[in-house]
Amino acid sequence: MAQIYNRVALIGLGLIASSMAHAMKADGLAGHIAGHAKTPETRETALSIGFCDTVHATSAEAVVGADLVVLCVPVGAMGEVAAEIGPYLMPGATVTDVGSVKQSVIDAVAPHLPPDVHFIPGHPIAGTEHSGPRSGFAGLFRNRWWLLTPVPGADLVATARLRALCEAMGANVDEMDAPHHDLVLAVTSHTPHLIAYTMVGVADDLRRVTDSEVIKYSAAGFRDFTRIAASDPTMWRDVFLHNKDATLDILGRFTEELFALQRAIRLGDGAHLHAYFTRTRAIRRGIIEAGQDTAAPDFGRAVNSAAPDGAKPRQ
Amino acid sequence: MAQIYNRVALIGLGLIASSMAHAMKADGLAGHIAGHAKTPETRETALSIGFCDTVHATSAEAVVGADLVVLCVPVGAMGEVAAEIGPYLMPGATVTDVGSVKQSVIDAVAPHLPPDVHFIPGHPIAGTEHSGPRSGFAGLFRNRWWLLTPVPGADLVATARLRALCEAMGANVDEMDAPHHDLVLAVTSHTPHLIAYTMVGVADDLRRVTDSEVIKYSAAGFRDFTRIAASDPTMWRDVFLHNKDATLDILGRFTEELFALQRAIRLGDGAHLHAYFTRTRAIRRGIIEAGQDTAAPDFGRAVNSAAPDGAKPRQ
Repeated sequence: MAQIYNRVALIGLGLIASSMAHAMKADGLAGHIAGHAKTPETRETALSIGFCDTVHATSAEAVVGADLVVLCVPVGAMGEVAAEIGPYLMPGATVTDVGSVKQSVIDAVAPHLPPDVHFIPGHPIAGTEHSGPRSGFAGLFRNRWWLLTPVPGADLVATARLRALCEAMGANVDEMDAPHHDLVLAVTSHTPHLIAYTMVGVADDLRRVTDSEVIKYSAAGFRDFTRIAASDPTMWRDVFLHNKDATLDILGRFTEELFALQRAIRLGDGAHLHAYFTRTRAIRRGIIEAGQDTAAPDFGRAVNSAAPDGAKPRQ
Repeated sequence: MAQIYNRVALIGLGLIASSMAHAMKADGLAGHIAGHAKTPETRETALSIGFCDTVHATSAEAVVGADLVVLCVPVGAMGEVAAEIGPYLMPGATVTDVGSVKQSVIDAVAPHLPPDVHFIPGHPIAGTEHSGPRSGFAGLFRNRWWLLTPVPGADLVATARLRALCEAMGANVDEMDAPHHDLVLAVTSHTPHLIAYTMVGVADDLRRVTDSEVIKYSAAGFRDFTRIAASDPTMWRDVFLHNKDATLDILGRFTEELFALQRAIRLGDGAHLHAYFTRTRAIRRGIIEAGQDTAAPDFGRAVNSAAPDGAKPRQ
């Protein structure tokens, strides 16, 4: 495929950045990939794996001459990075990010960018429970959504070029406004993660009572929860702190419905439970029809067909 | 492998029964497999797939001459079935069940069984979100736990024979008392299922607001929840009604912890969130070390290596 950007700077070199780099290298989408990570170990890992052409000790150095800068740090660190790189950005450059929350990133980043730079926030809905520079692989974005939330008045050509990059890495791209993005993701991702974290925490408390049997006999429901709850703690702390209103709104609805089901259990109201469970089963069908998952049964022993054989994800 | 039972009667012909039948047939563990299901359609399906040698219009007919009877109906139907088959059981026969709750099954079934029959309750911790006679396959129990909860004074030889059958189907067998089983499963399976059902219900309410985007952009957390929440409604209604006390206990602990995290989000207490998420990540490692799951990253696109190619699970 043809080169889309001359020089791409990745700030933060974790799962998303390393996967982007692998994908861009696989198809020659970027002329040069420059990277910055805070720790020397991560920078050396990126060089030794080879997904960055150069690594830089500061984010300011990394962005010099880049026509695309991608902020791949936790949501809570975006503003600080923007302040560091702002004065060094090339006129006409595009800045995007991959944060799971969009409005707070816009609020934190936009004020630091010069007016001749295009800021087009983004969010690839893709990931695994693994993190770090060794966890990336080129196929991560294939058939996944990449949501762009350009602010009003965003440059159409710059947006189309970024969109072309996302599509070339295999993603489906949609655009929406930031507050809407944050609400949809609070439902589909943020609140489910918080709930999974909570349930696994409860099980951990109880594990002391049951002498490890909670882990030993962990069944499908709980195993899935532990996988979700193994996601990067810093990233998720920042998601909840920065999508606070939408998450608290959805949590409120969740506890309301949970209490209604809890009451049905206490009162022995089987009809209520059965009707509720029948409704949720139908939603699963909607997801499969939307192509976001397969109907193949899952046994908590997922075999991944997308990751290359050489990928050695670390916990 | 050698035949373990001369004649096995399966009462209820869904996912677990059909998987048991496939597994027993694959290794010649049963001389004859008799089946009963309430609907003629299910009985015909069982015959046409061939996992039953004979099917019977009543459970009483199915158990005649059987040295092993397996109750594979929802937990709430166990007592009624026991009352039907009680007078027709062969002296010396073993009766077991596969219910996800054990104490209430013991309370419902035991009074209907003659004293010369061995009742050894059981629970294979295995399943998929699919149900019905077409969803079964021989490998379902491989490397899965099968918990037996024999009542005090249970016959040791009969227990060992049932254990041998479970092991021959690929399962690891452990014994524990019924109340302990019910508490452990409330944590690892029952409460997580209720939570997943609830979250998917909330998303369904919101879907009307967001014009299907909740499904379209469903991310990892939510996709996993919808899979869990697609499980059989009747089975799960009965689980909650019959493991009421343990489920309500764990739900109480869950909401306590959820409120503490919700408060941390509201107050912006990032340290609390980070510490909590770090702890839950460690639990995941425990599960992987216990061999109950793999470290391979999951993308919500599980490829199942255990089910035979011919398996066509239906929703």
